[in-house]
Amino acid sequence: MSQLLRKHLEEIIPLTNAEFAYILSFFTERKFRKHQFVVQTGNSVNHDFFVLEGLLKAAYLTESGKEYILQFAMENWWISDYDALKNHTPAASDIVCIEDTHVLCLTAENKQKLCAEFQPMEHFFRIKTGTGFIALQKRLLSFMMQDTQARYQQLFETYPSLFKRVPKSMIAAYLGVSRETLSRLSAG
Amino acid sequence: MSQLLRKHLEEIIPLTNAEFAYILSFFTERKFRKHQFVVQTGNSVNHDFFVLEGLLKAAYLTESGKEYILQFAMENWWISDYDALKNHTPAASDIVCIEDTHVLCLTAENKQKLCAEFQPMEHFFRIKTGTGFIALQKRLLSFMMQDTQARYQQLFETYPSLFKRVPKSMIAAYLGVSRETLSRLSAG
Repeated sequence: MSQLLRKHLEEIIPLTNAEFAYILSFFTERKFRKHQFVVQTGNSVNHDFFVLEGLLKAAYLTESGKEYILQFAMENWWISDYDALKNHTPAASDIVCIEDTHVLCLTAENKQKLCAEFQPMEHFFRIKTGTGFIALQKRLLSFMMQDTQARYQQLFETYPSLFKRVPKSMIAAYLGVSRETLSRLSAG
Repeated sequence: MSQLLRKHLEEIIPLTNAEFAYILSFFTERKFRKHQFVVQTGNSVNHDFFVLEGLLKAAYLTESGKEYILQFAMENWWISDYDALKNHTPAASDIVCIEDTHVLCLTAENKQKLCAEFQPMEHFFRIKTGTGFIALQKRLLSFMMQDTQARYQQLFETYPSLFKRVPKSMIAAYLGVSRETLSRLSAG
């Protein structure tokens, strides 16, 4: 199962067996059930998570109970409350399993240590964070510039497999529209 | 003037005089006039820019001529069309000087070489990109969750000096609202 991480890393850095074993020793493995909280608003955040199997969401609840989804994560994706993880502040989001989920966990300390001791991993995270930054700029632009129909279409085309696995109400919370608006879009 | 870069780097990595001279040798210096284009939609993008003095915007124009501003950059900030720079695609944005501007320029090749040869710089860019990622997540969330008044207030409190230097029409283009809406907000 951890070979999924190796394949993922090797898209950016070549690794020997010994190097991968060394990297893997910095991670711990955990399984969560559907609906289980991996991170909970107000609590401290200790890990970055790499998804081996399953599906999660990072969600924000307003005081009136409305949910907004900042991020989904499925196989090969990383997820955490990065602000809380970096700045040792309480989590501002809930990270919750939408399916039974199997992750590899990396503490902030271990990430720092691994990067310092083995430069290819520092390189990996620099490149990966840069890719995430670019994807996030595109998502922000689509919020600024596109109407809901175009955002829906773009999400559908970029991540077709998400649509099969995520309830429509969560797609609506990701796009920042009501469930009713989404129904009109998906019918269109 | 380049001491501004040194101070900026030393917020994350300590440097000797020799190390900074080595780092600086990877950069070139350029001056641009107000209204000058640093990056132009459709052209190739060769540099990441560190601002020593001045102010720039990264802007997207719709076919109907409406402008959206993805980013401002003033002293100590980095700016580029990162998607185009990374993927060697034509620029999707214009990066334009709002004031006379003085920058240090780093090609993608030199950034790669500098990071490979001197790990502290790989570390610097990993941390810096991570900080940018977190700031961008917050901006996206404010687009999803907050009304225009709250977004205006947040921008005003986070970057008070921007408000003194940037025309109101550009603040509106950054917040994704019309000039008229912004006038009502700033009067409120």
